[in-house]
Amino acid sequence: MEKFELTILGCGSATPTLKHLPTSQVLNVREKLFMIDCAEGTQLQFRRAGLRFNHLSHIFISHLHGDHCLGLPGLISTLALKGRTSDIHVYAPIGAEALFRPLFEFFCNGIPFEIYIHEIDTNVVAEVYTDRSLKVTAFPLTHRMPTCGFLFQEVGVLPHIRRDMIDFLEIPNCYIQNIKQGEGWTTPEGKFYPHEALTTPSEPPRSYAYCSDTRPVVGNVPLLKGVDLLFHEATFAEAEAGRAKETFHSTAKQAASIAQAAQVRQLLIGHFSARYTDERLLLDEARQVFEHTTLAKELLKIAISPRTQ
Amino acid sequence: MEKFELTILGCGSATPTLKHLPTSQVLNVREKLFMIDCAEGTQLQFRRAGLRFNHLSHIFISHLHGDHCLGLPGLISTLALKGRTSDIHVYAPIGAEALFRPLFEFFCNGIPFEIYIHEIDTNVVAEVYTDRSLKVTAFPLTHRMPTCGFLFQEVGVLPHIRRDMIDFLEIPNCYIQNIKQGEGWTTPEGKFYPHEALTTPSEPPRSYAYCSDTRPVVGNVPLLKGVDLLFHEATFAEAEAGRAKETFHSTAKQAASIAQAAQVRQLLIGHFSARYTDERLLLDEARQVFEHTTLAKELLKIAISPRTQ
Repeated sequence: MEKFELTILGCGSATPTLKHLPTSQVLNVREKLFMIDCAEGTQLQFRRAGLRFNHLSHIFISHLHGDHCLGLPGLISTLALKGRTSDIHVYAPIGAEALFRPLFEFFCNGIPFEIYIHEIDTNVVAEVYTDRSLKVTAFPLTHRMPTCGFLFQEVGVLPHIRRDMIDFLEIPNCYIQNIKQGEGWTTPEGKFYPHEALTTPSEPPRSYAYCSDTRPVVGNVPLLKGVDLLFHEATFAEAEAGRAKETFHSTAKQAASIAQAAQVRQLLIGHFSARYTDERLLLDEARQVFEHTTLAKELLKIAISPRTQ
Repeated sequence: MEKFELTILGCGSATPTLKHLPTSQVLNVREKLFMIDCAEGTQLQFRRAGLRFNHLSHIFISHLHGDHCLGLPGLISTLALKGRTSDIHVYAPIGAEALFRPLFEFFCNGIPFEIYIHEIDTNVVAEVYTDRSLKVTAFPLTHRMPTCGFLFQEVGVLPHIRRDMIDFLEIPNCYIQNIKQGEGWTTPEGKFYPHEALTTPSEPPRSYAYCSDTRPVVGNVPLLKGVDLLFHEATFAEAEAGRAKETFHSTAKQAASIAQAAQVRQLLIGHFSARYTDERLLLDEARQVFEHTTLAKELLKIAISPRTQ
């Protein structure tokens, strides 16, 4: 099974504390690493998680609050110091270029790679990244400043080759990729074996969605429909619902309602306010609405397996 | 004894690692905290050290390399989030205003205190801060960019009151401060007791000097003469003396030579290159030149006691 695994680097809100680092995550898709948000301290958490800087080229920033992006200049300085030569791509709301370019020019002056900042219009749903394994879609969230969520979807998952048939028909190795891509095989005697006879279907593509920081946005439910894993911020417990609304955050129960409405497989909640010494309160409130809920914590890894068909 | 105590928050070079945080220190002078350099992760180390944000108002930055100043925006955001209202003063080389002001305006927008950036001309020796207990002098260092060291000197240390004389002469409490400041006392019968009869001399003022990052600068020896504690960077061992010169850093032995020439009481070395798994090599090389040398490490506290007279 090829990797589709999330690592939490930080899941607190606002400011680093002795309990939580502020927000950062890494999604490993077949050993390519995709970072989501990059708070102060992210580069050190990345090392602690045993992740490899060489496998990281794409960083997605949800919004330009310090607790989601202030680790960027230090992280990129470190990449430069470690002798990196391949480019870095940062995807972030409009304003990121004006804010970060002067810093990169000052602190990463003379580095041997380019830093591309791809600005996102947070008012629309838009595909912001694609390669042959993955598509990333940004979508609007509702926070105190322009903010977007990200939906990561596997694409182009190829069927499995039936080794028994390949051996039996003595199909040469150089032709196997063609079969994976959809072709059949004609024997020297002229007998045709269709693609379906030579393969078993691929696993269904996997998906991960990230919603932070935001009030619950019911309008996003169709987009989030059936994702394998949803991370949704749950800054507050239900008793602080007023405070959540006022600060454009969500309660654990609201996060669970989104998960429930979107019929996701699994919900992960985080971005906890420092006021909660025991976050099981948040977990309990969420689970009353959506049972398959987990609390984020630093260095937690969640491997996403395909649904059984 | 009033506090004059140094806390090391980070003493690695270049980038945070699993062993060391990059540079930051705090000098506690009578419960007022003075921060020296502020790398990424400093605010969390500050919490780990049990220091109090309310006691911090002055931050001294030696130079504008990321591993000495990239923790500033996050630290100041956190101060704002914690409801601070008193001003913050940052003392840093010329260029700091242009670099940091846009960040403070973006990330610390609408905060209820002022952030003053006092720019330092790193080419000259200059008093950059003074209050009734402390004087801070910036002085030139030799690095790849404009860099200064800082000398912290206690001032105005008052003599001790002789309680036996105060009681014997029935001097009212409200007059004690005058005596501390230098006055004598005349009894109702007209007998005069001079200041010296009513007090014992104060301890000699204490001093701390910070030299990082820099090549060894012999020209600074007169300024550093006899300081109680000298922190000097020792990025490399003697075998890397060529690399030290090329990158405008010092070896442990060179740091010790400065300590020896300036006849300081105690030398603390830090800013270690990540190449040394065992820094006792650096300690040994330094001690061959200057015996009273200590290795910095994270959360080390060194209380500086006055010299015995």
